[in-house]
Amino acid sequence: MKVLVTGAGGFIGATLMQLLQQVGQIGAQRITQLAAMDRHLPPTSPDIVRIEGELQDAAVLERIARFGADLCFHLAAVPGGAAEADPALSRRVNLEATLDLFEVLAARPTAAAAPVVVYASTIAVYGTPLPDPVTPSTPAQPALVYGAHKRACEILLADATRRGRLDGRSLRLPGIVARPRATSGLVSAFMSELLHALAGGAPVTLPVGPQATAWWMSAQCCAGNLLHAATMDPTLDIEAHRERCWALPVLRLSMGELVDTLSTLYGVDGHALVRYAPQEGVEAIFGRYPVLDDRSARQLGLKDDGDARTLVRRALAPYTL
Amino acid sequence: MKVLVTGAGGFIGATLMQLLQQVGQIGAQRITQLAAMDRHLPPTSPDIVRIEGELQDAAVLERIARFGADLCFHLAAVPGGAAEADPALSRRVNLEATLDLFEVLAARPTAAAAPVVVYASTIAVYGTPLPDPVTPSTPAQPALVYGAHKRACEILLADATRRGRLDGRSLRLPGIVARPRATSGLVSAFMSELLHALAGGAPVTLPVGPQATAWWMSAQCCAGNLLHAATMDPTLDIEAHRERCWALPVLRLSMGELVDTLSTLYGVDGHALVRYAPQEGVEAIFGRYPVLDDRSARQLGLKDDGDARTLVRRALAPYTL
Repeated sequence: MKVLVTGAGGFIGATLMQLLQQVGQIGAQRITQLAAMDRHLPPTSPDIVRIEGELQDAAVLERIARFGADLCFHLAAVPGGAAEADPALSRRVNLEATLDLFEVLAARPTAAAAPVVVYASTIAVYGTPLPDPVTPSTPAQPALVYGAHKRACEILLADATRRGRLDGRSLRLPGIVARPRATSGLVSAFMSELLHALAGGAPVTLPVGPQATAWWMSAQCCAGNLLHAATMDPTLDIEAHRERCWALPVLRLSMGELVDTLSTLYGVDGHALVRYAPQEGVEAIFGRYPVLDDRSARQLGLKDDGDARTLVRRALAPYTL
Repeated sequence: MKVLVTGAGGFIGATLMQLLQQVGQIGAQRITQLAAMDRHLPPTSPDIVRIEGELQDAAVLERIARFGADLCFHLAAVPGGAAEADPALSRRVNLEATLDLFEVLAARPTAAAAPVVVYASTIAVYGTPLPDPVTPSTPAQPALVYGAHKRACEILLADATRRGRLDGRSLRLPGIVARPRATSGLVSAFMSELLHALAGGAPVTLPVGPQATAWWMSAQCCAGNLLHAATMDPTLDIEAHRERCWALPVLRLSMGELVDTLSTLYGVDGHALVRYAPQEGVEAIFGRYPVLDDRSARQLGLKDDGDARTLVRRALAPYTL
């Protein structure tokens, strides 16, 4: 089985690449070839096919076509903050290049089964404010360009699935921690910053209050879910199988709970190190996550990190699977 | 106020053009210039700006940009059957050229208010089978490429509206009757054929049974709704105002009811002239329309034809406003 990962140089992509190399197979099928695509790729083992460049570049799509993936994890995207600042770029990458990729994957000359596409969508498709609880029937009403383009791609991947061209599975990812401290273009970067700062005993200012609740997941857990999505049977979820979209199960934790967990694990005084400077705009989007009814996703075998300690441990050792 | 109609040479577009010329204004504002865009346009009065060509043609978009519309009725599209036969063409026209149009309209050099876009979407965004009743909270799960692309554009028009670039209003049109008898590329063409045939005393075979229910609207009623949508206040509908999408109010009538109405109005024996040859596939999509909860659309002033007789009379005299 030939497997392609787009956005393989990114935070989640790199974790997924490691996991794929480690397990070496997708369900019962051995990975015969693994390809990594991204603007920039870190050094990789020599048996990995490297496709370096922009997804919107015809030469990159041509190389993807030649590779001929049986399974594609599509993670490459312009992130939320950057997309909002440049909607035209978001359209080019998050919508059009994504649809181009879907077409290239679907256009296989062989009579083989439709390629599986595991698409990294986002909880940003729901918009704000989120209803409480969020359920599989919560309407998607994106309030950011990023979420709007991701939602459009979910719909069009489901349509390609209906037409038998692809076998799509869209996972709506929550904020994944702990991202590297470099600028990620994500407004939610403070979630990762909290973990890095307290683990290093450093002070940190949060743009939300201690009661602010968010949905949390480690990159390791996320990579495991992406891998699982490739082999799960979407038809077991009767409600969602037509749309093929699932919000990943999450840990719903307040900032205060995270601070307590970090304080215990790293032996620091979180209450002294954390300053809360709530900004209404940020808190409205990233600080009021309600209960998520994720039962149907769990039924399919998708998972959260289990508890706050495991989340933090995994999040701060993302490359040790 | 400068007004543009795309798809102005089509069945609904031509009716809307006539209505706009007749009323000469949008709400309290006089129409100072009217532009008609389509692949082919019928002869028009000399004061209408003619933009003949394909929407996906850069020269056409350039001319639209130069026109500088304050209000655009966007009706141009590859219809459902044709889109399903050529998904790549549907992507090019129904998705990408539509987004290009939105960008051209939004990119006005002046500091004027965001241009109003009345977008002809479709009840095909709901997919099949339709739940009973269909309500404003019924999820859009398109089961045709056409519906998927239209749904994506609804979402992206709502996003441009949120960003203050456009003032979008998406109307989900039902099957509109009575289309000209030439091939329209629509699977639902039999609905119009029934009207033409019985009005002319001719036999007709329907791919659905007498109990098959559909949602009906005349082109005249549809044009009136498009015009109304340009001036209505979308924020009065609290539930739907973020998405800016409304299914038009409809008459829900069975084929048998239509046959009876036509028989009375035209003095023909409909029961002798109509042969029912139900095809399961067609009946599933076009013959089982449930109740539509259209109260919020009515509240905004959108309307159906009133009764079956008025529908039929208007439908068969579409150019007599």
